[in-house]
Amino acid sequence: MDEDVVIVGGGHSKFGKRKGLGIRELAFEAVESLLKDFNMGLEDIDASVIGIAGEEFSGQGAPAAVINDEIGMAGKPTLRVESACATGTAAIKAAYGWIKAGFYDSVLVLGVEKMTSVSSARATELMARAGDVRWESPYGCTFPGYYALFASAHMKEYGTTKEMLSAVGVKAHHYGAMNPLAHLQKEVSLSEAMNAVPIAHPLNLYDCSLISDGAAAVVLTRESIAKKFTDTPIKIKGIGSGSDTMQVAQRKSLTSLQGAKDAARKAYKMAGITPNDVDVAEVHDCFTIAEIIATEDLGFFEPGQGGPAVLDQQTYIGGKIPVNVDGGLKSKGHPLGATGVSQAYELRKQLLGEAGKRQVDGATIGLSHNVGQSGQFVNVIIYGRD
Amino acid sequence: MDEDVVIVGGGHSKFGKRKGLGIRELAFEAVESLLKDFNMGLEDIDASVIGIAGEEFSGQGAPAAVINDEIGMAGKPTLRVESACATGTAAIKAAYGWIKAGFYDSVLVLGVEKMTSVSSARATELMARAGDVRWESPYGCTFPGYYALFASAHMKEYGTTKEMLSAVGVKAHHYGAMNPLAHLQKEVSLSEAMNAVPIAHPLNLYDCSLISDGAAAVVLTRESIAKKFTDTPIKIKGIGSGSDTMQVAQRKSLTSLQGAKDAARKAYKMAGITPNDVDVAEVHDCFTIAEIIATEDLGFFEPGQGGPAVLDQQTYIGGKIPVNVDGGLKSKGHPLGATGVSQAYELRKQLLGEAGKRQVDGATIGLSHNVGQSGQFVNVIIYGRD
Repeated sequence: MDEDVVIVGGGHSKFGKRKGLGIRELAFEAVESLLKDFNMGLEDIDASVIGIAGEEFSGQGAPAAVINDEIGMAGKPTLRVESACATGTAAIKAAYGWIKAGFYDSVLVLGVEKMTSVSSARATELMARAGDVRWESPYGCTFPGYYALFASAHMKEYGTTKEMLSAVGVKAHHYGAMNPLAHLQKEVSLSEAMNAVPIAHPLNLYDCSLISDGAAAVVLTRESIAKKFTDTPIKIKGIGSGSDTMQVAQRKSLTSLQGAKDAARKAYKMAGITPNDVDVAEVHDCFTIAEIIATEDLGFFEPGQGGPAVLDQQTYIGGKIPVNVDGGLKSKGHPLGATGVSQAYELRKQLLGEAGKRQVDGATIGLSHNVGQSGQFVNVIIYGRD
Repeated sequence: MDEDVVIVGGGHSKFGKRKGLGIRELAFEAVESLLKDFNMGLEDIDASVIGIAGEEFSGQGAPAAVINDEIGMAGKPTLRVESACATGTAAIKAAYGWIKAGFYDSVLVLGVEKMTSVSSARATELMARAGDVRWESPYGCTFPGYYALFASAHMKEYGTTKEMLSAVGVKAHHYGAMNPLAHLQKEVSLSEAMNAVPIAHPLNLYDCSLISDGAAAVVLTRESIAKKFTDTPIKIKGIGSGSDTMQVAQRKSLTSLQGAKDAARKAYKMAGITPNDVDVAEVHDCFTIAEIIATEDLGFFEPGQGGPAVLDQQTYIGGKIPVNVDGGLKSKGHPLGATGVSQAYELRKQLLGEAGKRQVDGATIGLSHNVGQSGQFVNVIIYGRD
């Protein structure tokens, strides 16, 4: 199958603490939103790939089939894909492969996570199991801990400051406040961000992404049949992935993610573009330091310049490269399996010029950067509108 | 990428109660076995797809990266795929898509499960979570329960007898006794099989597959570079998948799996063959009734004739279609994520003429049938040697 693969529809639930809604209802809400925006029905979709990171949040084993049935696709092939917090983009990549292999013409990719069914402490513990449960997590390495290490190393090596970290959170909340789908829709001042309750030094509450419930969906199809669905398909121009050692202790560097650099290089090459060609980016700001490192790993800024760039508003709309202008994981929220699909949803809206107050004018190329664990799963996907 | 995808290597751990070995060690054992049988090293493999069904057995979240690192692939992209008990073939299908998409030339597919870290009762409970945890499992539907329903329905509709069910177990143990990788290597008489302790009427102990630890691995690559790895590549000629309603209560029939019939039809069509062309089959005998239904769903026998066929030894070597001559899930064992990959391993050995005492003479086409949940995930893969 030598055609391009395109996105022809998107759907998104409200992200947040969605009391009373489980993975079934969240998935249904995303698909309901998809169908409103869609010429066709589910009968025109051949199969589904479901991204869910954790089973323990919902208690449902092998959850893909439950969701596939709930959204009205019973009897059509389905699959669960999991790559920790990079699950959503891994699902897109798997669906892309299925279409390229000729198995299906059209595939629904749905990412979903229900996280607030457990306490925040329990959620943090469950997420810590995605660290190395033999050699690291039993000794206290939670994810705030890993990223606190990265932040400290970045501060030492490049002079990155607490103010720069906090500026990432301020930007996230600035745009999240304009996004009706975001978990927290409120502005935060730099002073509030800098003086919040400590979580893992030097990270505080406003450096950490949210524990959220939510779902997002996109439909992938072959370019030659895209017109059946829409006049404005969005092309998947490049996909690259990277990984790293399981133990963070074995890494050569704590100030960048080798997997992200590898993934970006491959995605740029496949798309035939350079970082300067990207008009809008969604990056994995699970912690504020992660966004700074991401903008460096992706080649938007030189190593060490990611912090000054955000202080200088170079990652705002109107700056060099607008980043996470939907609020990001920090303010829009981070329902693990949904995040990478939500990035695709947002970039499609941006490339269609449908992002409203948060629109990046004339955007034709968008980049999604999605990281699982502490860099062991990284996918970079480049979307384009002709 | 219009070339065929081929298997160029296989590895397999011993299946069984592998005390003291976790998912890391089991995976390592399978890869060690792979490398003994392989011209090349892991440096010639670009990425991995890891199949693991359950996290709760091992306690390791997002386990793909841990395994990828442990087997010596740190830094190369990896992914976890999950489709309950059809996880292994789902991983092969995902890797096939990755290669067809042009992401990688060569991909390691590794399926693994550690199950005996918990009691059999706890394992049965954890597996029951793959049933519908809202509408069915809380009311007592464990997997022996589901398949007992299927068996009762098959007995009523077709006159299938307890003796026919037991004959499937007798055959499994007959061949398992010759397989040094099998969990239980012992013959069982028909009288022993018929009079074993009841599990869920009409199924008894010898109707149920084993709770096992184990891992299996295969390497997939593009046909044009296969000669780098081996002179005898095995071609993936067809892959088909099917699904069904989540609730068994909503099925139209309890005597066949619609998803298996759909998957078989697609796989045969893609391979350009009919059931009569298959020389040797690996089917998902999670329970003895499942093998009887499988041989009917796959078109080897007419509906209702699967039971008489096994009594008549038509599924033995020398019969119409040898089925599970490695012992199957019943005697070789069923480490969930490993099973579909183990089927690929065994069929490759058969097509290479390397199956020893269990060899099906002159086999050139092999079929793998792998079922997740109670038919919500079904993959049928057809392998061939030119």
